[in-house]
Amino acid sequence: MQHTDVNTLGEFGLIEHLTRDFPLRQPSTLKGVGDDAAVIDNGPFCTVVSTDMLVEGIHFDLAYVPLKHLGYKSVVVNLSDIYAMNAFPRQITVSIAMSNRFSVEALEELYAGIRAACDAYNVDLVGGDTCSSPKGLTISITAVGQCEKELLTYRNGARPGDLICITGDLGAAYLGLQLLEREKRIWQENPGVQPDLENQKYAVGRQLKPEARRDMIEAFRKNELKPTAMIDVSDGLASDLFHICKQSGTGALVEESGVPIHPDTQMLALKFKLDPITCALNGGEDYELLFTIDPNDAEKVKYLPDIYIAGEILDAKDGIKLNTKGGNLHELKAQGWVHF
Amino acid sequence: MQHTDVNTLGEFGLIEHLTRDFPLRQPSTLKGVGDDAAVIDNGPFCTVVSTDMLVEGIHFDLAYVPLKHLGYKSVVVNLSDIYAMNAFPRQITVSIAMSNRFSVEALEELYAGIRAACDAYNVDLVGGDTCSSPKGLTISITAVGQCEKELLTYRNGARPGDLICITGDLGAAYLGLQLLEREKRIWQENPGVQPDLENQKYAVGRQLKPEARRDMIEAFRKNELKPTAMIDVSDGLASDLFHICKQSGTGALVEESGVPIHPDTQMLALKFKLDPITCALNGGEDYELLFTIDPNDAEKVKYLPDIYIAGEILDAKDGIKLNTKGGNLHELKAQGWVHF
Repeated sequence: MQHTDVNTLGEFGLIEHLTRDFPLRQPSTLKGVGDDAAVIDNGPFCTVVSTDMLVEGIHFDLAYVPLKHLGYKSVVVNLSDIYAMNAFPRQITVSIAMSNRFSVEALEELYAGIRAACDAYNVDLVGGDTCSSPKGLTISITAVGQCEKELLTYRNGARPGDLICITGDLGAAYLGLQLLEREKRIWQENPGVQPDLENQKYAVGRQLKPEARRDMIEAFRKNELKPTAMIDVSDGLASDLFHICKQSGTGALVEESGVPIHPDTQMLALKFKLDPITCALNGGEDYELLFTIDPNDAEKVKYLPDIYIAGEILDAKDGIKLNTKGGNLHELKAQGWVHF
Repeated sequence: MQHTDVNTLGEFGLIEHLTRDFPLRQPSTLKGVGDDAAVIDNGPFCTVVSTDMLVEGIHFDLAYVPLKHLGYKSVVVNLSDIYAMNAFPRQITVSIAMSNRFSVEALEELYAGIRAACDAYNVDLVGGDTCSSPKGLTISITAVGQCEKELLTYRNGARPGDLICITGDLGAAYLGLQLLEREKRIWQENPGVQPDLENQKYAVGRQLKPEARRDMIEAFRKNELKPTAMIDVSDGLASDLFHICKQSGTGALVEESGVPIHPDTQMLALKFKLDPITCALNGGEDYELLFTIDPNDAEKVKYLPDIYIAGEILDAKDGIKLNTKGGNLHELKAQGWVHF
């Protein structure tokens, strides 16, 4: 058998390659592979399904991630995908494979975090699987949500002229990870040294205990705002904007000055000799929402807290560009996280 | 932190322990943890969700399981859980974590098997995740099905006097696995020797390419038969009957002469110096249906092919017993598969 390295395709290319020949035959399948979640028709309300797998040594490092935080985050990243469809999560299933180095007490910690997320987001744990693994911990979570059919928001609805909006702020989770990785390296070389997180609670918190933007979806409903396209920022602004532009068949112009970055993130980026905008564009794991709105809805967005207008959707031929604070136009590249 | 070995609780005990404090708050959650699948209310039709994780070195051995068969079986075992709710599967999501020893071609083989199962059972692949793992292959599949609310069949509906029914035949998958394991050991010791599967196509096929009993659920609908309780036989007849009895609050009497065992299974068991009924009771992986019916429905079942009446539900105080062909009463034990 030929041996083609999976790296040659990249994560998204690989999924696309493996799933392209699968037909959709069920009349209830409204959306299959390729958005934040799949959509199943159930009459006036649709069922929205999203799934994620987290693998020890790839997605998390138990050297600095407490199990309770890991449980919480594992749930939140899935709920974030449901919110990114403009839907509300209702149920989750949790499957765990773990080696015998994990005790009942360790699993209780993990499930305490899962429970805390269920409490915070009002979702029910309804099923799953617990099994052994020869090595390490793997967590697979599936979230099930609900949405009125006419309110579903896909990645493919952006049109030239639409405004690009971002919630919260970007780049902090990436820098939090850099800090934790640095302290781990120092500790490995000098086990006596206490970790110095430099009182960077904000960035570390964004990495270890992210939240999904349920509040935004609630605010959209209250203000009768329906985005034209939406995605959650899990791979970095650049990569996630590429998904919207590719599926909508558009280009985009992002203003660097419009990309929200927390002051602590700015400072920390400089300490790591990184450009803050690079962290926002390529960092990922922020779990904020990136969405586009009809320009007629601009007034509605202006009165909502924590939403920033960061640019405009263009024709596909105009490409996907960043206008820097210095006034230079840069072609954006979708780097994102490459796990392979 | 205290270190309690997970083996002290067992697989089912562990799930029960970890999930017992999770409240169900969503009005749409009709059934949470503890049946073949969770049930979500969507008006006249309910959504049924089941998830399973398969780990290399625990649930499968790529030394003798072809990747295409693995893909097929991974889907089938999930669909089997949906059928066991008296529901029809419609969609699946597939998440894969694999080490870099797997090539694109190997994944194509795996997905060819997944595709074949989607074709055979008319389900849509609607989502998933593909990621890297430091070691081995882990597959997590979630199946989503649909059922009219009044036709849902849980594990807890059996009543004393109900008849115990089994589809197909039991024990072959377990013996197929013994045969494959034996040939693997011989091959490891003498790499020159060709595997001798003794023309045991039936048992090997039942292990490598099981099917879910969609035909039975279709027959139930056609004949207006609604079982009072149902489960799929994944852990062995004894263990799965225990689940029904425990949740229904009943006992049971199984007639050894009523338990269907294929002639090839009988012969192969004897070659391995095993009692065929032990293979049926404790082997597992048959993916047949074990269900109970009201005695008034006995006539309906008699005219359906491939269903065997194997005993009767009793009061809880009567225990769970096997009446052997020799006329002895044995207390049944729920051994099942212990993976930890």
